[in-house]
Amino acid sequence: MSDGPSPFRVGTVLFPGFEVLDVYGPLEMFGALAFREPGKGGGRVEISMLAERPGAVPSNQGPASVADSALADAHDLDVLLVPGGWGTRREVANAAFMGELGRQCASARFVASVCTGSALLAAAGVLDGLRATTNKRSFAWVVSQGPRVNWVAQARWVEDGKFFTSSGVSAGMDMALGLIGRIFGKETSMTIAQQAEYEWHPDMGWDPFAKLNGLA
Amino acid sequence: MSDGPSPFRVGTVLFPGFEVLDVYGPLEMFGALAFREPGKGGGRVEISMLAERPGAVPSNQGPASVADSALADAHDLDVLLVPGGWGTRREVANAAFMGELGRQCASARFVASVCTGSALLAAAGVLDGLRATTNKRSFAWVVSQGPRVNWVAQARWVEDGKFFTSSGVSAGMDMALGLIGRIFGKETSMTIAQQAEYEWHPDMGWDPFAKLNGLA
Repeated sequence: MSDGPSPFRVGTVLFPGFEVLDVYGPLEMFGALAFREPGKGGGRVEISMLAERPGAVPSNQGPASVADSALADAHDLDVLLVPGGWGTRREVANAAFMGELGRQCASARFVASVCTGSALLAAAGVLDGLRATTNKRSFAWVVSQGPRVNWVAQARWVEDGKFFTSSGVSAGMDMALGLIGRIFGKETSMTIAQQAEYEWHPDMGWDPFAKLNGLA
Repeated sequence: MSDGPSPFRVGTVLFPGFEVLDVYGPLEMFGALAFREPGKGGGRVEISMLAERPGAVPSNQGPASVADSALADAHDLDVLLVPGGWGTRREVANAAFMGELGRQCASARFVASVCTGSALLAAAGVLDGLRATTNKRSFAWVVSQGPRVNWVAQARWVEDGKFFTSSGVSAGMDMALGLIGRIFGKETSMTIAQQAEYEWHPDMGWDPFAKLNGLA
């Protein structure tokens, strides 16, 4: 926890073709915890970037981010952040990556996915029997990755135990603020949103995009 | 332009301590132009990451992004994207960087800044006599970097000629969609926002955060 000597540890999963806003929207919000006073919902934050192998990882948009650690070497994570992007189509068939993802999901305190990141979680089997959501444009494909998941078509994000799954791309910011609220209190989320000049949607049921895509 | 054989070229300025959402919020929107059909507001997009020297550049939140080119080597940019972040405090005193930034601003078709990125533009002198805005929490410092700029305290973003300057962090996404609208039409911006499940604020005068910070 961040109020004591231990930092709040966020591990972000990277793979070729990750969606940039799925990663950096939530990291903007989690990173802001570092700039708040200890004891008032914040303190020290350590953000690690995790991939199958350390090094530069190209995004879906082109630019590469640096993975500082191998996914297999992550430990003591408060949050494991799993983005989506077109690369998820390839990774669901990457047995080594998927096995390690499943192990990290088991040990992390919270697991948070954005967009088609929930397809990775579903394919790893960690969402079986749980409620979850995903983005609205790839809904059918994601559902096919997890037939035993209770998929929710209309939701900005869904919480079930330690798993927070969000809708498409931008929804990751709202979900991250929801997760920060769960851990540090809603006032902390509101403050972080205001500092980022972000209009947070704190209602996890807010989802006009489901209807736009014929899912509600 | 993207409808012909030439790609739409976006160059993003990186420096140590850049703010992650300032960069990747707009790049999510610009990147989406690549996935639309040519002739319908999109086509090919090339996103380059530019720093004083190529290599890994650490963000304000910790994780590093890869600069693939030196700022001095950029050319033929449709958009030069300039983020903010605490690193701006150091860069305004970096004469080599500031000189090159000024040269790139002169040659780019559009220049778009987010948050305290407008302090870099102001210190480079390229905003003199123009209207511009910046984030609301560092307003006084940014204004001190450009006494001959016509600073607008309450605005989501401001357009003056080829310069688009936005408010803090999240405002960069709204500004990027505004710039895409200027070039490709508002319908393209609306479609990109919906695909990213983002509730765009298309009114550049929308700014509840100015009042929250005593600036309106």
